Amino acid sequence: MEKFSRSQRVAAITKNLVENPNKIINLNYFAEILSAAKSSISEDIVIVRDVLERLDAGAVETISGASGGVRFVCKISESDREDFAVKLCSVLEDKCRIIPGNFIYMTDIMYNPEIVHKAGVILASKFSELELDYVVTIETKGVPLAYEVARMLGVQLIIVRRDSRVTEGPTVSINYVSGSSKRIQSMSLSKKSMKKGSKCIFIDDFLKAGGTALGIIDLLTEFESELLGIGVLVDSIEKKKKLIDNYVSIIQYKGISDEGFAILAPSVHQK
Amino acid sequence: MEKFSRSQRVAAITKNLVENPNKIINLNYFAEILSAAKSSISEDIVIVRDVLERLDAGAVETISGASGGVRFVCKISESDREDFAVKLCSVLEDKCRIIPGNFIYMTDIMYNPEIVHKAGVILASKFSELELDYVVTIETKGVPLAYEVARMLGVQLIIVRRDSRVTEGPTVSINYVSGSSKRIQSMSLSKKSMKKGSKCIFIDDFLKAGGTALGIIDLLTEFESELLGIGVLVDSIEKKKKLIDNYVSIIQYKGISDEGFAILAPSVHQK
Repeated sequence: MEKFSRSQRVAAITKNLVENPNKIINLNYFAEILSAAKSSISEDIVIVRDVLERLDAGAVETISGASGGVRFVCKISESDREDFAVKLCSVLEDKCRIIPGNFIYMTDIMYNPEIVHKAGVILASKFSELELDYVVTIETKGVPLAYEVARMLGVQLIIVRRDSRVTEGPTVSINYVSGSSKRIQSMSLSKKSMKKGSKCIFIDDFLKAGGTALGIIDLLTEFESELLGIGVLVDSIEKKKKLIDNYVSIIQYKGISDEGFAILAPSVHQK
Repeated sequence: MEKFSRSQRVAAITKNLVENPNKIINLNYFAEILSAAKSSISEDIVIVRDVLERLDAGAVETISGASGGVRFVCKISESDREDFAVKLCSVLEDKCRIIPGNFIYMTDIMYNPEIVHKAGVILASKFSELELDYVVTIETKGVPLAYEVARMLGVQLIIVRRDSRVTEGPTVSINYVSGSSKRIQSMSLSKKSMKKGSKCIFIDDFLKAGGTALGIIDLLTEFESELLGIGVLVDSIEKKKKLIDNYVSIIQYKGISDEGFAILAPSVHQK
């Protein structure tokens, strides 16, 4: 077989790393598919690492030991993050998005892969230092975003359901009080879904008072599991009082103006 | 600013292309972020294209004209596809997966980003020649897979709901008869979700008789839109008669053996 050039190997390695975020890939794998010496592969990886670092576009980490290798950790530059949040605000400020009941229509945003992918990278990079077992969400609108975060962090996704299904075996259900509507609702999760003693983060599209997030914490308690963080696309600060206080968001929603459009701003991020 | 080397540029370009499947990226964009001449960028892109082609890992297409550029089209080699399907069958054949009512528990599979990503690439590559507006799915289990297919094809995802929600404005609902249970069910979609005259594919986790797919066709008719294809992870051929006949699947489910485990095999694919 004809050998690959350095640039060709670099392209193949980059594709593999980027497509498998947070997954440790052994150097032997690259050496085999690219028929190159492990030492050459090591040099190739240094090139990939350097350019991603210079562009602030992710990290390539080396894990030593027998099961070691390299893994890609997603990252986004501060300016790209800011840019994304500003653009998203201006899209959502469109007056046509206000629907009866003063809700903002944002289903199209939550199901737009380009937006969801970027939002997923932003949220995932906030949690990339945690040792996680699961990314948890509740059906339906936050599912693509939670999936992207799970993919970027290389962990399993869990979707909590509003009802239980025959195809999932025994389930655990809890009731919770929605923080904004004060209605009693229920959520359920198949017992097979989660092993005991797991560490999770909760990802959703919209955070109002935080009742759903509290419900998730209760549900996780039933699985003797722990919630380590919460990430949402939009944080509604219309109602001042929140039931939870530790979460990250990408943009903030401040209510509807007298002129009838949504008031939004990028969230202030801590380093 | 210090210049980037050829290999560094190739890494940056590969990452950008792979992260934005089917999106046309103008060469000026690369020239700018990498402070290089457009002619060098063109040469870099040839390198990326050649190695992806040699590895059967995707295509880089050039679109000429003012709004032109290059785009990455996902692809998977026959051997990788076969490999994936065989492994998936052996995972699903595990006896513990059979739950009362003779269902196979596969929620963990549908929410596993590594599996879903690969399945998404396999299905997307079957539809990459179509000019599509939307990838449609129905909540909940098929959502991550449909999202991956939408992302790979660079089009908007649409999630049909089983009930309608106050946060989505006016909706269109239809009733349909589930092909396997013969029960009447309903599905609904917000009127804002889809523009008239759209071309769609339907992606789901499991295809039994095809009643849901027929329902989707009816629902699309209400939006004067058209279904161009159907893709599923698992095609159940336990019941011989299907209500639809034009679909692609990754694996086939043939029922439960006398020993109590699922019988599965990779689907036979047409070129």
